[in-house]
Amino acid sequence: MKPLRIALAQINTIVGDIPGNARKILETTARAREAGAVLVVFPELAIPGYPPEDLLLRVSFLEENVRAWKEIARQVKGITAVVGFVDRDARGRNYNAAGIAAGGRVRGVYHKMHLPNYGVFDEARYFSPGKGPMLFPAGRSAIGITVCEDIWVRGGPLPREVKAGARLIVNLSSSPYHAGKWETRRELMARHAVASRCPVAYCNLVGGQDELVFDGGSMVVSAKGKLLARARMFEEDLLLCDVDGNGGRIDPAPKDEEEIFRALVAGTRDYVEKNRFPGVIVGLSGGIDSSLVAGIAVEALGAARVLGVTMSSIYTAKMSVEDAHALASNLGIRCIDLSIGDIYRTFESELSGPFQGLSADATEENIQARIRGTILMALSNKFGHLVLTTGNKSEMSVGYATLYGDMAGGFAVIKDLFKTNVYRLSRYFNGKSGRAVIPERVLTRPPSAELAPDQRDSDSLPEYDVLDPILRMYVEGDKSIPEMVAAGNPEEVVRRVVGLVDNSEYKRRQAPPGIKITPRALGRDRRMPITNRSNA
Amino acid sequence: MKPLRIALAQINTIVGDIPGNARKILETTARAREAGAVLVVFPELAIPGYPPEDLLLRVSFLEENVRAWKEIARQVKGITAVVGFVDRDARGRNYNAAGIAAGGRVRGVYHKMHLPNYGVFDEARYFSPGKGPMLFPAGRSAIGITVCEDIWVRGGPLPREVKAGARLIVNLSSSPYHAGKWETRRELMARHAVASRCPVAYCNLVGGQDELVFDGGSMVVSAKGKLLARARMFEEDLLLCDVDGNGGRIDPAPKDEEEIFRALVAGTRDYVEKNRFPGVIVGLSGGIDSSLVAGIAVEALGAARVLGVTMSSIYTAKMSVEDAHALASNLGIRCIDLSIGDIYRTFESELSGPFQGLSADATEENIQARIRGTILMALSNKFGHLVLTTGNKSEMSVGYATLYGDMAGGFAVIKDLFKTNVYRLSRYFNGKSGRAVIPERVLTRPPSAELAPDQRDSDSLPEYDVLDPILRMYVEGDKSIPEMVAAGNPEEVVRRVVGLVDNSEYKRRQAPPGIKITPRALGRDRRMPITNRSNA
Repeated sequence: MKPLRIALAQINTIVGDIPGNARKILETTARAREAGAVLVVFPELAIPGYPPEDLLLRVSFLEENVRAWKEIARQVKGITAVVGFVDRDARGRNYNAAGIAAGGRVRGVYHKMHLPNYGVFDEARYFSPGKGPMLFPAGRSAIGITVCEDIWVRGGPLPREVKAGARLIVNLSSSPYHAGKWETRRELMARHAVASRCPVAYCNLVGGQDELVFDGGSMVVSAKGKLLARARMFEEDLLLCDVDGNGGRIDPAPKDEEEIFRALVAGTRDYVEKNRFPGVIVGLSGGIDSSLVAGIAVEALGAARVLGVTMSSIYTAKMSVEDAHALASNLGIRCIDLSIGDIYRTFESELSGPFQGLSADATEENIQARIRGTILMALSNKFGHLVLTTGNKSEMSVGYATLYGDMAGGFAVIKDLFKTNVYRLSRYFNGKSGRAVIPERVLTRPPSAELAPDQRDSDSLPEYDVLDPILRMYVEGDKSIPEMVAAGNPEEVVRRVVGLVDNSEYKRRQAPPGIKITPRALGRDRRMPITNRSNA
Repeated sequence: MKPLRIALAQINTIVGDIPGNARKILETTARAREAGAVLVVFPELAIPGYPPEDLLLRVSFLEENVRAWKEIARQVKGITAVVGFVDRDARGRNYNAAGIAAGGRVRGVYHKMHLPNYGVFDEARYFSPGKGPMLFPAGRSAIGITVCEDIWVRGGPLPREVKAGARLIVNLSSSPYHAGKWETRRELMARHAVASRCPVAYCNLVGGQDELVFDGGSMVVSAKGKLLARARMFEEDLLLCDVDGNGGRIDPAPKDEEEIFRALVAGTRDYVEKNRFPGVIVGLSGGIDSSLVAGIAVEALGAARVLGVTMSSIYTAKMSVEDAHALASNLGIRCIDLSIGDIYRTFESELSGPFQGLSADATEENIQARIRGTILMALSNKFGHLVLTTGNKSEMSVGYATLYGDMAGGFAVIKDLFKTNVYRLSRYFNGKSGRAVIPERVLTRPPSAELAPDQRDSDSLPEYDVLDPILRMYVEGDKSIPEMVAAGNPEEVVRRVVGLVDNSEYKRRQAPPGIKITPRALGRDRRMPITNRSNA
């Protein structure tokens, strides 16, 4: 007897590109059929791409997606395909749906019952919840359908589908990455499988979409909770698995720094490619943030598509430019050397009237940063390249960054990476490269913005190993000042950090998008008022 | 027999300022009692301020709000007060609640049943829905409670409360302004009142919070649907009304341009005051957008707190500077004259290497705009003033603006006002002022960004009277290209406009917040992906 062979089609869709996504779905279905699968499962909302956001308010977009689904169903033969799309009922209500197609016909449509509306998710904005579970026959089995959140909540459809006779549960997901999430997913699948004595096949989306990276890692878990097959992470894959036989390939999974590094590479690559930029520009300060960002960019796009720019001033240490050059040379990227001194002096002269008699303060530092931002944007405008910004989560949280200055650019690669992790990831990058691509001195010098004489970050901020744990509790954990103090942080430092975070919300509101790698990032994941007189 | 006198406490709260809001609630309660009211009603979420956004994820904030509510209830005597706050149950679920206090005790707590999760609203992110309606005795009556959305949906609690014996329905709202919304609200109240033969008292929030303005206009409608009393719009008010007697004061309501103008003034004033800026800076180009913004700023803050800046270049027409000066003089504001020519030339020289052999394009225009942005931000940094940006909705929709250039600033006053309406509002402003405060020439010259020789907006964009109706259909109405063409717009123009809108989402994502005055603004009201290959 032939085993029940299923295929998990872990594809990288593009939001809004219904014809392109549909084409990919049909091509992958054909490959799955040729590989002997009786069932192929696609990610959640594979037809419109995920998350389509307010495209879902456009009726013509919804209708195009339904037409694409019907055309796909017409073409699915010799295999059963389960495809994510947006279903519409006669009253104009929309559902996050899984369509089942076989024999050139629609065999059924399941509506996601549980709509996440927290974190980055706004599904209650768009969808009505489904009314009940769904089983359908495939080969010799009955298969229960679930979509993403359905298996993350109590009272989801899974147990009811198993009770009604499901011999396999499939889950269509578009589950955004954060560090370590894959293992959480595996544990969940295993728990469901064991509790229901039923194997679970989980198909996840892969690829970057604005601030989100979908990490793939689709998997099949046996009825005993054993991992039978795992797809690649951060790459497209077609995972085949004989559910009642020998299972399938178990791809090795990256961990810790490697996992985060690959997430940042995937997110950067897809933002650049899907938005059709020829390449990227990175301002190289000789500091660790820009060095790591340049390294990620080269990994994502190749050295030929990355342009480094140094923009030195009188405050720039000689070793900063040396280190920037060493980095560029190690990475094999082109580097342009410019300086901001002359431009700065004309600003100074033009502003000498209004500033007469006033002493220098952060204003003069910000002007320097904004000259650099303007230069990078000018190169971007002229050559069509995307400017990558280099601010990390520690800086972005406390507002230690110049709006329209170092914050100027289209994509903030390490926006969700705390400074202490920037060091860790840089060491990983050098280790992986087998040599100090990021010069050792960059890793050991005290960090400085070099906008004033002998400046150091620690003049304005607590040391990062003090700051980051506080930020983790406040920004990611919503802790109060008393709670943070009780955890051992000095009260005066905690109060200062809370003030810095709250008062810099206006900067974050105008920051470029960046890749989410923690359970709470600084973009749509954390929606704080600017006008805000709360005391944490 | 004494009439049933109620008070609608239309207060201006500050998000997060629980102690300040609580103080205001108690002071207003005392005033209502002294005025002979038996009942005083406050807006939705008056204690935390509205909308508190992700402050609601912080347990310490929620607990502070509950403590404030209990302390308020302890102090309410000689009157019944209905106050919006966030209630929490033992399982940690939160409710958008109306607490009823009298005799120094909590008399009841109603939980909002219908949670809006569309447009600017994210209430499903924070709250659980209430389980049922609530009646409570006040004076000789039974009063039914509703909170905002509860009366905007079918199947809300109102009819059930009337059936159960309510003699008055109160509604606590924090209903964001858009043009003409007050009349929609009045019609709704009248319909409810007539259908249920029961008067309705509607208390709305007033004041600005980031992108939202709450317009007040609290009202009481009789059982026959007649307006018995109306509070001021865009200002705090304590509206007294003898519901079963002579009613109360009916404040005149502004309309059309006056209404929008007052909304923009209120929104600007509160953003500045609540964030404690000493004043504002406006770059004056001699064009209509910056002229109107300066006029609104003076109306909001007084001339002494508004600083104008001209920043001319070789492309600046002489009449532009003359008109900017005339405007400043008419408004009575200080004006600094700077020029960007020298700075521009140093940029040109610094970039001459990388740009060698390449012809001028939008890059050179953007550099000029960014020099201006940097100058305005330098003045802002040095003097602590907020930079107001002057871009209108037409420009922001099609991306006819320079990111970090003319888009640089903290608050975008007319971001939700189409260019054709900028003209209308400017004429209204001159009319109201009784003279051409905005020089007539500004109103009649063809608009130009003055970033290249003899430039006009119409070189790059359709005429605004062609553009704006298309934008209204696309940006506000989610129409498809075929629908817009069927409405009589030329297909080639429609396609071009759609492309411009879709391709400039990255700019809008980094734009400063601005005041919502239409049913769909460009901020949190419209959440589009940047990476987006849809075809409208």
